[in-house]
Amino acid sequence: MRFIDDNFLLENDYSRTLYFGSARDCPIVDFHNHLPVSDLCEDKQYHDIGTLWVCSDPYKHRAMRLMGLDERVISGEATSREKFNAWCGIVPYLIGNPLFHWSCLEMKRFFNFDDVPETGNADMIWDHCNKLLGEKSYSVDSLLRNAGVLQATTSDDLLDDTTRHRKASEVSRIDISPSLRADSILSFNPSWMDRLEIEEMSLEAYLNAVSRHLDLFASNGCRLSDHALDNGFVYIATTFEKASRLFSRLGSLCPAETAELKSFILGWLGRQYARRNWVMQLHIGAERWTSSRLRLAAGPAGGFACPGSACDIRSLCDFLDGLDKEGEMPKVILYPLNPSDNAALATLTGSFSQSGVQKVKFGPAWWFNDHIYGIEENLEILSSYSLLSQSLGMTTDSRNVLSFSRHEYFRRILCNWLGNKVAKGYLPADFDLLDTIVKDICYRNAKRWIYEQR
Amino acid sequence: MRFIDDNFLLENDYSRTLYFGSARDCPIVDFHNHLPVSDLCEDKQYHDIGTLWVCSDPYKHRAMRLMGLDERVISGEATSREKFNAWCGIVPYLIGNPLFHWSCLEMKRFFNFDDVPETGNADMIWDHCNKLLGEKSYSVDSLLRNAGVLQATTSDDLLDDTTRHRKASEVSRIDISPSLRADSILSFNPSWMDRLEIEEMSLEAYLNAVSRHLDLFASNGCRLSDHALDNGFVYIATTFEKASRLFSRLGSLCPAETAELKSFILGWLGRQYARRNWVMQLHIGAERWTSSRLRLAAGPAGGFACPGSACDIRSLCDFLDGLDKEGEMPKVILYPLNPSDNAALATLTGSFSQSGVQKVKFGPAWWFNDHIYGIEENLEILSSYSLLSQSLGMTTDSRNVLSFSRHEYFRRILCNWLGNKVAKGYLPADFDLLDTIVKDICYRNAKRWIYEQR
Amino acid sequence: MRFIDDNFLLENDYSRTLYFGSARDCPIVDFHNHLPVSDLCEDKQYHDIGTLWVCSDPYKHRAMRLMGLDERVISGEATSREKFNAWCGIVPYLIGNPLFHWSCLEMKRFFNFDDVPETGNADMIWDHCNKLLGEKSYSVDSLLRNAGVLQATTSDDLLDDTTRHRKASEVSRIDISPSLRADSILSFNPSWMDRLEIEEMSLEAYLNAVSRHLDLFASNGCRLSDHALDNGFVYIATTFEKASRLFSRLGSLCPAETAELKSFILGWLGRQYARRNWVMQLHIGAERWTSSRLRLAAGPAGGFACPGSACDIRSLCDFLDGLDKEGEMPKVILYPLNPSDNAALATLTGSFSQSGVQKVKFGPAWWFNDHIYGIEENLEILSSYSLLSQSLGMTTDSRNVLSFSRHEYFRRILCNWLGNKVAKGYLPADFDLLDTIVKDICYRNAKRWIYEQR
Repeated sequence: MRFIDDNFLLENDYSRTLYFGSARDCPIVDFHNHLPVSDLCEDKQYHDIGTLWVCSDPYKHRAMRLMGLDERVISGEATSREKFNAWCGIVPYLIGNPLFHWSCLEMKRFFNFDDVPETGNADMIWDHCNKLLGEKSYSVDSLLRNAGVLQATTSDDLLDDTTRHRKASEVSRIDISPSLRADSILSFNPSWMDRLEIEEMSLEAYLNAVSRHLDLFASNGCRLSDHALDNGFVYIATTFEKASRLFSRLGSLCPAETAELKSFILGWLGRQYARRNWVMQLHIGAERWTSSRLRLAAGPAGGFACPGSACDIRSLCDFLDGLDKEGEMPKVILYPLNPSDNAALATLTGSFSQSGVQKVKFGPAWWFNDHIYGIEENLEILSSYSLLSQSLGMTTDSRNVLSFSRHEYFRRILCNWLGNKVAKGYLPADFDLLDTIVKDICYRNAKRWIYEQR
Repeated sequence: MRFIDDNFLLENDYSRTLYFGSARDCPIVDFHNHLPVSDLCEDKQYHDIGTLWVCSDPYKHRAMRLMGLDERVISGEATSREKFNAWCGIVPYLIGNPLFHWSCLEMKRFFNFDDVPETGNADMIWDHCNKLLGEKSYSVDSLLRNAGVLQATTSDDLLDDTTRHRKASEVSRIDISPSLRADSILSFNPSWMDRLEIEEMSLEAYLNAVSRHLDLFASNGCRLSDHALDNGFVYIATTFEKASRLFSRLGSLCPAETAELKSFILGWLGRQYARRNWVMQLHIGAERWTSSRLRLAAGPAGGFACPGSACDIRSLCDFLDGLDKEGEMPKVILYPLNPSDNAALATLTGSFSQSGVQKVKFGPAWWFNDHIYGIEENLEILSSYSLLSQSLGMTTDSRNVLSFSRHEYFRRILCNWLGNKVAKGYLPADFDLLDTIVKDICYRNAKRWIYEQR
Repeated sequence: MRFIDDNFLLENDYSRTLYFGSARDCPIVDFHNHLPVSDLCEDKQYHDIGTLWVCSDPYKHRAMRLMGLDERVISGEATSREKFNAWCGIVPYLIGNPLFHWSCLEMKRFFNFDDVPETGNADMIWDHCNKLLGEKSYSVDSLLRNAGVLQATTSDDLLDDTTRHRKASEVSRIDISPSLRADSILSFNPSWMDRLEIEEMSLEAYLNAVSRHLDLFASNGCRLSDHALDNGFVYIATTFEKASRLFSRLGSLCPAETAELKSFILGWLGRQYARRNWVMQLHIGAERWTSSRLRLAAGPAGGFACPGSACDIRSLCDFLDGLDKEGEMPKVILYPLNPSDNAALATLTGSFSQSGVQKVKFGPAWWFNDHIYGIEENLEILSSYSLLSQSLGMTTDSRNVLSFSRHEYFRRILCNWLGNKVAKGYLPADFDLLDTIVKDICYRNAKRWIYEQR
């Protein structure tokens, strides 16, 4: 069965004009993903389509569990071929889920394979893809370049070696930069803290050590940080003195005290980002503690998380206002995971501002929301409660090079959404204006607001 | 005014092909309703259409209050005829509400009456329906069979006599089984506890007595239980020892202690259900304490409840993880009442899993959400955050035999939703695949996952 | 570029029939706005279009901040002309946001100006509009009358002079009445309390003084009050004695004690409104404390608020039940700001009722929700969880006379929404019924339920 054609998701002439005329050929600026920088440094070739496509993708693992497959062919000891076959066997039953569209699109764009994967064609796909993966034009860099990627920012721990990003940029001709996944700084994991090499066990020394690493990141091109404000996030304003005392008692803090110490450091980091002109990404509301059993079996990012309860808006405002009051507020991107937070957080983009620059942006539909339903809701919310024209567009948030076709997916959805509004007379049929706005959303806003604007 | 025609809610050819070709003739497996088993045992005939249709339906009472009618013709002393007339008089003003569609559909399917009820035709409907209700083909069993019902599971208190369900099954040729409405077990009502006949006033004896009744339910065909996790639900993990001490102080517990005791028993019940391979239904988030005055006037289920605040996702995860860790997790169906919980709870279906079986399902649009808007949202959420193909379809949750036409209502909405997606190119126009999935949703998933699979 | 034509937002023949045949010529009854009564008394002429349209509109200020404009041309020292030019320059980039539609509609309806405002035509608009604003037919009263306004209710502090409303009604031939913005009564601001002239510093004396002013409002035609239940609202039932003790300690109360005192007074006010047959409006869930810096720069209503977390449904039920139990429950309109409260609060309209009158209504899409997306959601929610036919329609909630064109905007959206449902076969094509319901929603329900019904 064939599925994807040229007009996939483009329902009318306006949609098609916008997609083919304005969106399709925009370069890709992917400001948040989890590509392994080592793969980029060595311009990796992939061993087989099972390893590349199935074995390490928690989204697929989740769907396989929902289909009642055995954990052996999900995160277990089965071979790459077995896992691949198991995956193909369920693809038709994923209709309605983004994995169905993604899978078809990835097969079509990267491997020019037209049919929907299924048990009957799994062997053919295996052979077809593996043959191609052996070719030089299927190295990670080639795949990215052929997908139109201009700039890609990976997510890195404070103690990761970000000189590799410079090296990767040289290898790849794509602009590869690091961003700071800052959660370790707030986790106080003893072995991580040992590696940080603090001069003495004080908050001041801790922050000094962190600051030195922030400088390293900056010197290697970092322009963004990233924080997970998971389910239960509260912000408790506090002083350096109080935080120092709490820090000295690390290991014996009650949850409220831990929250207070984290709040202080989060604020301190915000000011550090502001000074370095970094963007602070807030990924809000994940619940990562569901099945302990799966956590053991599949690791902490094994595809079993879910959205937590709605965000404490008061805490978020307190946190942002604390930075704003001191005049050291970085640019911020809000990514809510629970869609019941969408309207409030999109509106919040208008609540903070500084002359000449929008301070807070509403981010792309994140994680479980990255599908037509979530993206269209994101666009509706963004335009109704904030401003569509200021959107940062799409970022993959993926560790998989094939996921870069989701930019095409997003752009088709965006252009179709716009085209439908034009057809209904809700938006003006002014294609100069729409061309500007589409290109801004597809890459210029991200490029300017994150990487260029000071 | 005529309203319902053959293509009701079916907007395009795809929708119609799916409905008429795949959905319409599927048998009905209704796994959660409140049909009185006594009516089924005696194959009841109804006295008049007012009694059957209006007098005991809290949905209609709610609408009558919204229209500003006098409580006398709602839950008061008015005659069945008066209540029926009052109801017919407001039906046209319910457009947009599911009660309008339901009422028209019930008149059409069961009584072959085409016009929208209104003041002007109330007398005609009264006579027409009452005449039919006197015929043998209008007994409860005949009505169910003619509606295509294969299997129906009622909701029963632990102390109810479930041997009646065997008897009802013999009378009716429909497979009638009980399910456990388990809330009494967690309510600690003294008179109910007296009837339970505990050997001594200890938690152990209490659970032993409950366990014996669970066995009775099992021996009479029970495959599901049902819990109301009402507004304010919290789960507090605790030990048997602590729970035993709390149980011994019943009557003098503070709210947090009561929550802790209930948490223990809820977990214990979950493990009991797992051992018996029952499905545990969680109806989440009702606020049943609104108007005390209406509660007195119309009884505790008198149609004045509303959705409470969003669910505490952390508590829900703690509860499920507690069962999962011990390897005694039953299958679970989540029914959120507040739609702001939809995305989180649908995603949670992928967070627990056991080799070979999906453990957690997202249930049908429940109660106040049972309308086109809620069902379409349910389908979008289910397919975007979980898997549509694994849906359990529809259950009536109703005490009224005429409500079984809501399966037709659901199927039309489902097929129209699918057909629209096919027309837009979002789903493949593969009618073999779609036929399989539609039939799975309409009855096979429920039949297999609830009643057959071990 | 032209944008608005006669069929703006009306997608099919049904929509157009309903709008042109039923909705368009309905008079406007605007039951909640912030028109300055002094403007109405003196039948004000406006100095220039910048002052009228841009300088004091927090919605526009918010959009200008989102576009990264300098605060000088927003709330700062720039001239009216500069602010107007800055505003025109961003209008095209607001597509998708209601401000784009509103701006085009205001230019079209009040100034017969067809093109979308932009930098290129800003000078022309300035001259064109200012010339018209000098004419007598552009006084506030003329503008309102030409917009079809029959009745308008402003929002007034308890200590405001409501005799002015009688005077305004005489001047304007529109029925102008006050409504009570009651928040000061619960704010305990010392200087406000001084102006209240309490006989002694006791709760009893306080309530007596308030009651006298309520009588003044009533004697000047007041029929509504209005309360902001902001983010964090909790209701704590208490006694007069406890509240009196708390009142005597004003200034030294902890937050929970303040909430308890406010709860008592809120309940007392509810009973006072019931006795006077006033409608109590509850505006629920705003978070007004975001950027302290903008609060200083732009004032407390400077356009930087956002929706807070979802409402505590339990508290809201406790509050309403407290009134209902005592038989002194006023009519209530619920306006949720966070759309995740929509379903719960719309359902709550069916939870309280008194023979002969619907007690609780779900209000129009409020503030940040006042756009196509929010209004259509409001209509879906209202019809699915409550009853569309009982809707109060639209109110502007605006301080700007040009905002009265939002009634047209609402009516077009309403008729298009209905027409689309008729076209899909979801609603009956019974145009007598639809005509009745459209006119009820557009003005008759508000007129009867708020101003006439006792």
